[in-house]
Amino acid sequence: MTKIIECVPNISEAINKEVVREIIENLKVTGVKILDYSSDTDHNRTVITFVGDIETVKKGAMQVARDAVRLINLRYHRGTHPRMGAIDVIPFIPVRDVTMEECIEISKEVGKQIGAELNIPVYLYAESAMSENRRLLPEIRKGEFEGFFEKIKNPAWAPDFGPSEVHPTAGVTAVGAREFLIAYNINLNTEDINIAKNIASSIRESSGGLRFIQAKGMLLSEKKCTQVSINILNYKKAPLYRIFEIVKMEAARYGITILESELIGLMPLKAALDSLAFYLQFPELTEEKIIESKIYE
Amino acid sequence: MTKIIECVPNISEAINKEVVREIIENLKVTGVKILDYSSDTDHNRTVITFVGDIETVKKGAMQVARDAVRLINLRYHRGTHPRMGAIDVIPFIPVRDVTMEECIEISKEVGKQIGAELNIPVYLYAESAMSENRRLLPEIRKGEFEGFFEKIKNPAWAPDFGPSEVHPTAGVTAVGAREFLIAYNINLNTEDINIAKNIASSIRESSGGLRFIQAKGMLLSEKKCTQVSINILNYKKAPLYRIFEIVKMEAARYGITILESELIGLMPLKAALDSLAFYLQFPELTEEKIIESKIYE
Repeated sequence: MTKIIECVPNISEAINKEVVREIIENLKVTGVKILDYSSDTDHNRTVITFVGDIETVKKGAMQVARDAVRLINLRYHRGTHPRMGAIDVIPFIPVRDVTMEECIEISKEVGKQIGAELNIPVYLYAESAMSENRRLLPEIRKGEFEGFFEKIKNPAWAPDFGPSEVHPTAGVTAVGAREFLIAYNINLNTEDINIAKNIASSIRESSGGLRFIQAKGMLLSEKKCTQVSINILNYKKAPLYRIFEIVKMEAARYGITILESELIGLMPLKAALDSLAFYLQFPELTEEKIIESKIYE
Repeated sequence: MTKIIECVPNISEAINKEVVREIIENLKVTGVKILDYSSDTDHNRTVITFVGDIETVKKGAMQVARDAVRLINLRYHRGTHPRMGAIDVIPFIPVRDVTMEECIEISKEVGKQIGAELNIPVYLYAESAMSENRRLLPEIRKGEFEGFFEKIKNPAWAPDFGPSEVHPTAGVTAVGAREFLIAYNINLNTEDINIAKNIASSIRESSGGLRFIQAKGMLLSEKKCTQVSINILNYKKAPLYRIFEIVKMEAARYGITILESELIGLMPLKAALDSLAFYLQFPELTEEKIIESKIYE
């Protein structure tokens, strides 16, 4: 069986659709299978999800990095989502017949190449992190692009690969191996960012909320609403319905309701069925009970 | 592309697991792909779902019919679900690259063979029905096994194939072609059959409820509860969540709540995602956003 690795590069562009289109078109040529890409113009960020074997995924990741550095100028970048690089983060996820160790190895090779070829400081994060304070992306990203010109001078933040100077237009990049996660956003019918921030802090693990949940509150100026932006690091332990219902409950105390949910990238079938089973009170709803509806159309 | 037909024979046995096992084992040998089988001991009925190409599906359907007639004696059959035959009903559903007309043709061939080989009166129903009053299964089944010895004497109920006398142990059988349906049950925490019947009549099309919905109230003595047993004939027009929420709402007026939902056979992915999107307020949740979780485990 061919080894399959997933790669989910986040690039700091969504408003300029031509740039996104060019990056996607060039990525296709590398032979990876693009599963999804989600552009959010408030975030001004695009999350691309693709899979392939080891060599193809490395090639695809390098292609996205090259194009992002060439086409995106962070000095002019405005967006709600914190970012530090034109190619902001490149995670590799083991999918089939491949170990986390192999993904760590891939991330190191790609990180090294980005440093050398594109002249960008690279930080290894998540499972690839060489020290504890580089495991979590928010820690690395603190200060963002603008703050990194100072931050990088601190020896504790010397990059793992590449030059020790921030790239003038493309910033710095985090590369690493991690487990699969669901990127899930909930939009609220308020423009009061404090409400979104309070709700985010009530559900995220780091503030005493649910385990395996990262969350932050953001203002979406274009949509004229706020958002609780969530990473679900373990969808079996922290199911979608529970997050949704807690956010709804917390929102109610402010007289606020949920506008909509949003999925960035993909969701495993099991995660969808577990939440549906909760709402419709199925004792269990297994993947064996589900058929692709295409065959009935 | 190989034509694919689905067949969902309903046999009047669930309590005697040896009989069910033997029927399933013999069915496997015919080369069909068994997708599911659901036995309900209160109904005393097993619903088998299998697929295959035209010839294989015909062979599979005949094998189930033969074994059911040989192994099941309706004179001793007790169960909540109305039934008229050991092999009660055999629907054929177009799945891939096959027309409804071809499925009608298949149903006629199988019906004819059941009549001739097994000596059982056969009624063509649904899309295969030769007259309007044979389109709907409940119409044909009225009177059930016990009543058919009289009913069959009425010229209006002369069978389409087979003898004009009810088989002494296997009754009569309905065979036909139809569109895909979802068989969905909702159990209520009451043993008052009238409540289940009232709720069933409030949601089914024939009593003025939702279009594309057939429903009846049943007592499940073994589970000590009642059930609204539902066929969803068009899951896009009558989504699961709407049925569930209306049943919940109607139950509340009696101080009753829903115990659990139950799926008999299979459900298309689109049906699951549409209902999940309702509860989690996704504007849309397409099949493209879903990956089989197996590849992440």
